[in-house]
Amino acid sequence: MPSTGIDNIGGLLKVGPGPVELKDIDPNGHPGFEGDKKAGKAALAELEDELVDLQTKLSAEGYVGGHRRLLLVLQGTDTSGKGGVVKHAVGLFNPGGVRIKSFGAPTKEELAQDFLWRIEKESPAAGQIGIFDRSHYEDVLIAKVRKLAPAKEVERRFDAINDFERRLTEEGTTIVKCMLHISEDEQRERLLARLDRPTKRWKFKPEDIDERAYWDEYQAAYQDVLERCNTEWAPWYVVPSNRKWYRTLAIASLLRDKLRAMDLSFPAVDYDVEEQKRRLRP
Amino acid sequence: MPSTGIDNIGGLLKVGPGPVELKDIDPNGHPGFEGDKKAGKAALAELEDELVDLQTKLSAEGYVGGHRRLLLVLQGTDTSGKGGVVKHAVGLFNPGGVRIKSFGAPTKEELAQDFLWRIEKESPAAGQIGIFDRSHYEDVLIAKVRKLAPAKEVERRFDAINDFERRLTEEGTTIVKCMLHISEDEQRERLLARLDRPTKRWKFKPEDIDERAYWDEYQAAYQDVLERCNTEWAPWYVVPSNRKWYRTLAIASLLRDKLRAMDLSFPAVDYDVEEQKRRLRP
Repeated sequence: MPSTGIDNIGGLLKVGPGPVELKDIDPNGHPGFEGDKKAGKAALAELEDELVDLQTKLSAEGYVGGHRRLLLVLQGTDTSGKGGVVKHAVGLFNPGGVRIKSFGAPTKEELAQDFLWRIEKESPAAGQIGIFDRSHYEDVLIAKVRKLAPAKEVERRFDAINDFERRLTEEGTTIVKCMLHISEDEQRERLLARLDRPTKRWKFKPEDIDERAYWDEYQAAYQDVLERCNTEWAPWYVVPSNRKWYRTLAIASLLRDKLRAMDLSFPAVDYDVEEQKRRLRP
Repeated sequence: MPSTGIDNIGGLLKVGPGPVELKDIDPNGHPGFEGDKKAGKAALAELEDELVDLQTKLSAEGYVGGHRRLLLVLQGTDTSGKGGVVKHAVGLFNPGGVRIKSFGAPTKEELAQDFLWRIEKESPAAGQIGIFDRSHYEDVLIAKVRKLAPAKEVERRFDAINDFERRLTEEGTTIVKCMLHISEDEQRERLLARLDRPTKRWKFKPEDIDERAYWDEYQAAYQDVLERCNTEWAPWYVVPSNRKWYRTLAIASLLRDKLRAMDLSFPAVDYDVEEQKRRLRP
C-alpha cells in the first residue's frame, strides 16, 4: 500500500484507445489500492500537504506571468458523486487558487451563442486550478439522449470539443477529464438515501427518476464521448465510483500526478534580496 | 473559553458609530479569546462542522429558489493576511458553494466602466458564500492616497458604495466587511519573512516597500472608509491581525454568527416522499 495516494493512477484508469465498454469496467472496483475505506481516507488526508505545495507553485508561476493552469472536468450521471469530489478532493487545495463552475441547463442568453461560449468564459486563469462540475460534454450527452439537438449538430460538437480542448492545452492548460462510473443499482440506493434523510431531500427531484429510464442510452452516449473525445492532449479517465472513498482518493491522486508532471518550482525573482532587506531594516 | 469559536465576536469588533481611531485599536489584541495560539487553532477546527452545516442549508435554500447569500469583504494593507483568511477560514467551507474573487488593478476595459461594474459582476449568486479579496474599497483607498481619482470623484464613490451595498442587502445579501488591522512593524517583519524564504519571495515586489511610505495616509483613508461606509446594512469590523491565528478564528466566528442569524433550515419539498420511494423500489 502506497503511503500517499495511488501511484500511477492515470495508467490504471485511462480509457482506450478505441471503443469503450462501460459494462466491462467494475463500478465497485478500486484499482491500485488494496486497503479498505479507513485506509483510503487516511491515504487521502496524507495527500493534502503535497497538493497544497504543488498548487502554491502553480499559483506562484501564474503570479509572475506564467500561463499554465489545470482543469478538472467532472462528468457522471446524477448521484455519481461530482459534488463529493469537489468537497473532499478539491477541498484539500487552498480555495484561493481554485475556480469551480457548476454548469446547469443553459440560459436563453447562452443558447443564443455557440455551446462553447459559456465554457470558455469559465475556463481557469493562469495559475488557477479550475473545476467543471458538468461541462460542455452535456452538450453531446443530454443533447443526444434527450434529442435536444439534431444528430448532425451533435457530430459537429464532437469535433469542436476536440479542437477547443487542443487550443486550451496549447495555451498552457493541463486538462483532466473524469467520468464517475456508478451502477444503476447504486444510483437507486443513493436516490433512496436522499429521500430518507430530511437533510438531503432538497437535492431530489421526481424528474431524477424519469431520467433513469434513459440509463442505457446515457451509458451508450458516454461510450461515444469516451471514444470520440479521448485525445492525446485531453485524455478521459473512468473512475469506479460506487465506493465514494475510492473515487475521491483516485481523483486526488490523479491531480497530484498531473501537477507533479508539470515539474513546478518556485519562480526566481528579479530583484536583489539583500538590497530589499536593507531597505526594510536600514 | 468557549468550546467553539468566539461568542458574539461581532459586538467586540464592530466599529463606530462615528469616527474611528485605528491607533486606539491594538493590532496585537485578541478580544473575546483568552486562550493561546494552540487553543485558538483548536477552536477554529471545532467550527468546521457547524460552518459546513450552515453553508449546506444556505446552498439548499438557493437550490430551491431562495435569494439569500453571504458576502465577506476582506480589506487590509499588504501582508495583513487576506490570503491567510481565505486559506484557513474560508477553507473550512465546502468549496462548491464558495465564490472567491481577488481584485487587482482594474483593466483598461474595467476602467472604461463605473468602478462598481466589475464588482457587481463578481457578486455571489443565491445560496453562495462570496469572498472579495480586496474590493470596491480600493477605489476609495488607493484612489485617494495615490491620487488616482479627483477628490470629488472619491466623494461620489462613498455614497455610491453605500447605495450599492444597500441594494445588495435588500436583494438578500448579508454583507460582512472586515479590515485586517496590523501594525507597521508587523508588516516589516512579514515582508522580511517573505524575503527570507525562497518559497515566499515571489510574493514580494520592491514596490511593496515604496507603498510603506504612505502608511499613515492609508491608515487615515481606512479611517474615512470605516466612518463613511459603516452602515446599519453593511457594518465594518476591525480585526486585530498581528496574531494570525486570532485573525482567522475571529473571522470564522463572525461568519458563523452571521450564518446563524440567517435562521437557515433545510427546505421542505413539494413531492410525496413515500410515492417517490415506491417509484424507485416497486
